[in-house]
Amino acid sequence: MKARVHVMLKDGVLDPQGEAVKHALHGMGFDGVGGVRQGKVIELDLEDGTGEDAVREMCEKLLANTVIESYSIEMA
Amino acid sequence: MKARVHVMLKDGVLDPQGEAVKHALHGMGFDGVGGVRQGKVIELDLEDGTGEDAVREMCEKLLANTVIESYSIEMA
Repeated sequence: MKARVHVMLKDGVLDPQGEAVKHALHGMGFDGVGGVRQGKVIELDLEDGTGEDAVREMCEKLLANTVIESYSIEMA
Repeated sequence: MKARVHVMLKDGVLDPQGEAVKHALHGMGFDGVGGVRQGKVIELDLEDGTGEDAVREMCEKLLANTVIESYSIEMA
C-alpha cells in the first residue's frame, strides 16, 4: 500500500525557491511561465491496514509545518 | 493553464531525506511505514498555448538533474 503526500507553502507565504526557478526559466527564454511554486512530495510504502488517518497524523506531527504549509494525501 | 512536475530520485539512488523521515516516523511510533522517498513538486502557471513539450524542455534543462532524478509532468 502506498501513499503520496504533497506539501506546499500556503498561498500568501513567500516562496523563494519558486521565485528563483521562475527567474531562471525567464532567463533561459521560457517567457510563458507565470507563477512558480515549489513544494515537497513524500512517497510512503505502508503496511496493509495503515489508513489515511495515520498518514494524516504523520503530516500533522512531522511532514508538514501546518502554520505555513498545506498538505494533501493520495492513497494508492 | 497549469502544469505540475514531480521530480524524484531514481530507484537505486540513495535518498537521505527519505531515510531521515522514515527513522523519525519510526521513532514516533509509526511502525507501519516501510520505505520513504522524498522529492520535489513544482507547480507552474503557464500562458495558454504553452505545451507539454516546453515543460519537458524546462525539466531537461533546469528542473531535474536527469543523471540521478526522474520527472513526470501533469498538465491541467
